[in-house]
Amino acid sequence: MPGTPGSVIERLVGRLRACPDVAAWAVGLAGRTFVVVSGDESRVPALDAATAEVVLAEHSTTDRGYWLVGRESRVAPDQVRIGRGVVGDGDVWCAAGPCALESVPDTLETAHVLRAQGARALRMGLFKPRSSPYHFQGKGRGGLADLAAIRAEVGLPVVTEVLDPRDVQVVAEVADCLQVDTRNMSNRALLAELGTIDRPVLLMRGLRSSVSDWLRAAEFVFSRGNRAIVLCARGVATFDDSLAFQPDFGAILAVRQRCDLPVVFDPSHSTGRRHAIAPAALAAFAFGADGILLESFLRPERLYRPGDGDQMYPPGRVAELLEACRQVRAVFDRVDV
Amino acid sequence: MPGTPGSVIERLVGRLRACPDVAAWAVGLAGRTFVVVSGDESRVPALDAATAEVVLAEHSTTDRGYWLVGRESRVAPDQVRIGRGVVGDGDVWCAAGPCALESVPDTLETAHVLRAQGARALRMGLFKPRSSPYHFQGKGRGGLADLAAIRAEVGLPVVTEVLDPRDVQVVAEVADCLQVDTRNMSNRALLAELGTIDRPVLLMRGLRSSVSDWLRAAEFVFSRGNRAIVLCARGVATFDDSLAFQPDFGAILAVRQRCDLPVVFDPSHSTGRRHAIAPAALAAFAFGADGILLESFLRPERLYRPGDGDQMYPPGRVAELLEACRQVRAVFDRVDV
Amino acid sequence: MPGTPGSVIERLVGRLRACPDVAAWAVGLAGRTFVVVSGDESRVPALDAATAEVVLAEHSTTDRGYWLVGRESRVAPDQVRIGRGVVGDGDVWCAAGPCALESVPDTLETAHVLRAQGARALRMGLFKPRSSPYHFQGKGRGGLADLAAIRAEVGLPVVTEVLDPRDVQVVAEVADCLQVDTRNMSNRALLAELGTIDRPVLLMRGLRSSVSDWLRAAEFVFSRGNRAIVLCARGVATFDDSLAFQPDFGAILAVRQRCDLPVVFDPSHSTGRRHAIAPAALAAFAFGADGILLESFLRPERLYRPGDGDQMYPPGRVAELLEACRQVRAVFDRVDV
Amino acid sequence: MPGTPGSVIERLVGRLRACPDVAAWAVGLAGRTFVVVSGDESRVPALDAATAEVVLAEHSTTDRGYWLVGRESRVAPDQVRIGRGVVGDGDVWCAAGPCALESVPDTLETAHVLRAQGARALRMGLFKPRSSPYHFQGKGRGGLADLAAIRAEVGLPVVTEVLDPRDVQVVAEVADCLQVDTRNMSNRALLAELGTIDRPVLLMRGLRSSVSDWLRAAEFVFSRGNRAIVLCARGVATFDDSLAFQPDFGAILAVRQRCDLPVVFDPSHSTGRRHAIAPAALAAFAFGADGILLESFLRPERLYRPGDGDQMYPPGRVAELLEACRQVRAVFDRVDV
Repeated sequence: MPGTPGSVIERLVGRLRACPDVAAWAVGLAGRTFVVVSGDESRVPALDAATAEVVLAEHSTTDRGYWLVGRESRVAPDQVRIGRGVVGDGDVWCAAGPCALESVPDTLETAHVLRAQGARALRMGLFKPRSSPYHFQGKGRGGLADLAAIRAEVGLPVVTEVLDPRDVQVVAEVADCLQVDTRNMSNRALLAELGTIDRPVLLMRGLRSSVSDWLRAAEFVFSRGNRAIVLCARGVATFDDSLAFQPDFGAILAVRQRCDLPVVFDPSHSTGRRHAIAPAALAAFAFGADGILLESFLRPERLYRPGDGDQMYPPGRVAELLEACRQVRAVFDRVDV
Repeated sequence: MPGTPGSVIERLVGRLRACPDVAAWAVGLAGRTFVVVSGDESRVPALDAATAEVVLAEHSTTDRGYWLVGRESRVAPDQVRIGRGVVGDGDVWCAAGPCALESVPDTLETAHVLRAQGARALRMGLFKPRSSPYHFQGKGRGGLADLAAIRAEVGLPVVTEVLDPRDVQVVAEVADCLQVDTRNMSNRALLAELGTIDRPVLLMRGLRSSVSDWLRAAEFVFSRGNRAIVLCARGVATFDDSLAFQPDFGAILAVRQRCDLPVVFDPSHSTGRRHAIAPAALAAFAFGADGILLESFLRPERLYRPGDGDQMYPPGRVAELLEACRQVRAVFDRVDV
Repeated sequence: MPGTPGSVIERLVGRLRACPDVAAWAVGLAGRTFVVVSGDESRVPALDAATAEVVLAEHSTTDRGYWLVGRESRVAPDQVRIGRGVVGDGDVWCAAGPCALESVPDTLETAHVLRAQGARALRMGLFKPRSSPYHFQGKGRGGLADLAAIRAEVGLPVVTEVLDPRDVQVVAEVADCLQVDTRNMSNRALLAELGTIDRPVLLMRGLRSSVSDWLRAAEFVFSRGNRAIVLCARGVATFDDSLAFQPDFGAILAVRQRCDLPVVFDPSHSTGRRHAIAPAALAAFAFGADGILLESFLRPERLYRPGDGDQMYPPGRVAELLEACRQVRAVFDRVDV
Repeated sequence: MPGTPGSVIERLVGRLRACPDVAAWAVGLAGRTFVVVSGDESRVPALDAATAEVVLAEHSTTDRGYWLVGRESRVAPDQVRIGRGVVGDGDVWCAAGPCALESVPDTLETAHVLRAQGARALRMGLFKPRSSPYHFQGKGRGGLADLAAIRAEVGLPVVTEVLDPRDVQVVAEVADCLQVDTRNMSNRALLAELGTIDRPVLLMRGLRSSVSDWLRAAEFVFSRGNRAIVLCARGVATFDDSLAFQPDFGAILAVRQRCDLPVVFDPSHSTGRRHAIAPAALAAFAFGADGILLESFLRPERLYRPGDGDQMYPPGRVAELLEACRQVRAVFDRVDV
């Protein structure tokens, strides 16, 4: 609380840390001070009156494993700024671009088209979590200068992925938003590091993770001090092969009921099929999504994996798609669900 | 073919049946004669010229297990008439009503409202495939007279479920469309019996069945002579509990690519959550569905299982929902996917 | 109870049936009389003193949906006789044979070898629930005479599958045990019919059904009066493709904790891989199974689907496998789990 | 190859690295030199004769994404030494201990019992990948001294988990084997770091990962130069709740067919049920496992999460269990599968 002297907080944190197997830290969120306590309940002492003004985020208040990102804490934002765009402002937000940054000229040309078509951010990766060590893993840190150059020339913010906690700080100096891939949703070391930066985080749901685990992953970031989190729904792995995954539209509703953070959807990777991208994008807004993340590239045939072209949306048709999404979103807003 | 004399066909069927472990029968579909051959390929003899005009539906033409319902056979309809309504005519078709027929007066009152709100058919069950033998299993044959009375008074066609092949003929005398539930999608005896009636069949996808298995189930009905099949997508069972099941919107697209039969969606049972019914209905049309099957009842609190009220849509708001569905369907039709 | 006059029971059943939407019937099990009540709890009246000696099997005693097959009812057997063999007598029971009955001479030759190798029953199917209508569906009723002849000549009891309730009585006249396949575990009409015969039922778990649903399916049979049920665990469908399915060994333990009925395991269809059959059979006994169901044939290359040979165990090595199973079962019995 | 001068290799690596978006490095494995090439096939130049003696591990030789760990490369070991014990020597290897290191005295007492009972290594964690940020996350680096002290006093090697690539080197100085948890199986940064140390790695299969992805994860470690990999099978996540997960015994066979690396099994976490641990351990050896990883603690009621006691095996009964495992393993070795 504003009125609590720093020395009181320090003393509280110190006292908690003196307990065996308890970790504790103070974090300022939305103008209030929270003391986060990580450790078994039986080891955490009862608090005396002097600390009553400090909000304690600990196991007993958060038995479901998340609380700060939830509605009750009143510190999670319902809008997140990425560059000059805002996710959650009621309009249809869209980040678009290739999966990985490969050819700079092709990407630049694509990015200019996407900007003209109404994309609010660019997306492209330098670190790719490929399942084979023999496939192209992305340009890595060596590509940061190219990323910065594209961003500057096109004038759109850039969303890009990180895999290694050691890359977080350096990437945050260049990119406008750091993305956590499905495979890394439960990567504690990475999440903790992302909690320390002054950049928004786009947190994808793991393909086989529950919504609760997803919100707990968000809490790992949030409880370290970074409130700027955008959740990105994708798909869940099932036996069904109609699409690459089963798009988890229901997760959009589930998140909406439990927390205020904005939620976007990725119709490209969740479906993996060209003809399903537009329907999935429309359906995401029928479920109340705040935006979409679109894989889009002018010359998919030149990509290292041309097969990826199957899930590329033509840049030149993004404006038409976004307009259709706006119409569905308007229907959603009108129907009293 | 029209030109093939019946005696030639009879002789062919007879010759096939003489092969060990081969079943064969002739079936007229869309004005053509097909000879369906069921049996191991190695046991089926090569055909002589005299039978060239008869189309043979057998393993070698149908290695994926369905062919008559597929696009190539050109005998599957893209519209199916249910009473005076048509599924697949480009408009938004809707059947609505309670899960099981319980109280006749309550159901009648509900049905009148649903008709006024634009429902094109009523749905209600007499045979319920409940998982516990101690729960109400439906009124059974004893409820057929009530069903007929409601149908007559309200003036809407009725869709109702069958579980036992021995009930098919008698239910077909009263109902306008016979529904196969998810649990019975692979019930061979039931499917074969449904192939012999002159009533449309609404075939639900099994919660854990592939789209191919679903089409093969449709082929079991179709190859016995009944072309009037409406596919009904629902959901697939996954680890995710955001909704009762993962709505299988992708299956709508998958079916569209492989066959012409109309496809509707069930937003009530696939989501099992009141607040998700409208979004799921909208999303179904974003994926190109031809209609929806809606669980809707005026007094859910009087049902044997009041909890079912969680997936009931209020009858008085069906018209508004259908209008919203029409708008999304229009967006889908405009966007070139 | 023995002491309750038939007229009292009749009156009770009559009174229950007079309630709207309630079904009731009396069934004698292990020398006691049970009145089974199917219907919503709110519709079932409280019972007066005159009926106190009759055990009522109804929703309130069976809120998990099964009770008679459970341990508490004390009427479910822990041994089931199939021909002269007994499942659950502490020894390793084994039924073996081809999937479908095809060539009679080949099957006879195989059956003689299996008998010499220690199989306690033969297994072979006349009705095959194939997913394509164009594949061989089994000899059907036409094969019953062959089945009877093989049974008589070899002198082993026969386990065979039924799919259609209309076939149950006629098959029960020939076969020693009727098998319900994974696809039909939830086929209510079939289960109810099997409850009326005087032949043991081998009930397979559905590939995507819970253990509770499996026991509820057993209750459907049991509550109609047939106590002779052998549960057969197989596998559950998962994303994993190491084997055809994930063998559900844990289900053996789960069933053991909740009911007394004997449990066998099918290592052939659950693994679908030749090299995994023996390990899976051994593992089943490490989990306490009472027996196995083995697909075994002398000339798999002559089968309609030679690929099925991949899951055939050589008849000539069955004795060695059963001996190994006995050793593992002995280890299981020694270890105090 | 031994005969290839270092300068030739250096030149080759340099030439490869000069290609756009190609990473390359040389690694010595089993006395041979491999040049690992990561990058899109179309970017990798054809090699001239001078490099013929160098084995190139690249996409074209490894289209399934793993090759070095596979049988064909002939450089993967079939035995891995952990301290003085050897996994894969034909005997039953066992590492046992608590999930996390909590109380040092309790752990020491447990460890002495486990050693007397025949455990070949201790297991305990300092870094726990808990899903809630408010639960005890392990003692972290601060517990390394305790770990070292327990290891020294008991005289058994220690297996412990790492989550963060920045912890790998420092943990490797104390522990005998570094474990990768199911949640981190696809953590590229962690795997790459583990490839650089001179300590064996115990790599758990992800709960929802395919066997191929598991082997590709092993390849990430191996291709960086660390051959000492033990695979640890656990369970796969399914709809079934008989056990915590479905134990993936089939994965043991699948790995055996494709690679030589030793495979152990974790009956504690895969089942999560006390009464299933022994059956699952026995079954693992029925499928040919080389060892087990056992959660075992003397005073589970004192753990931070006493519920974990449900999956603890009593230390005093480990010897009996290992003897039973040896008997089943002997049966497995005798039966010709």
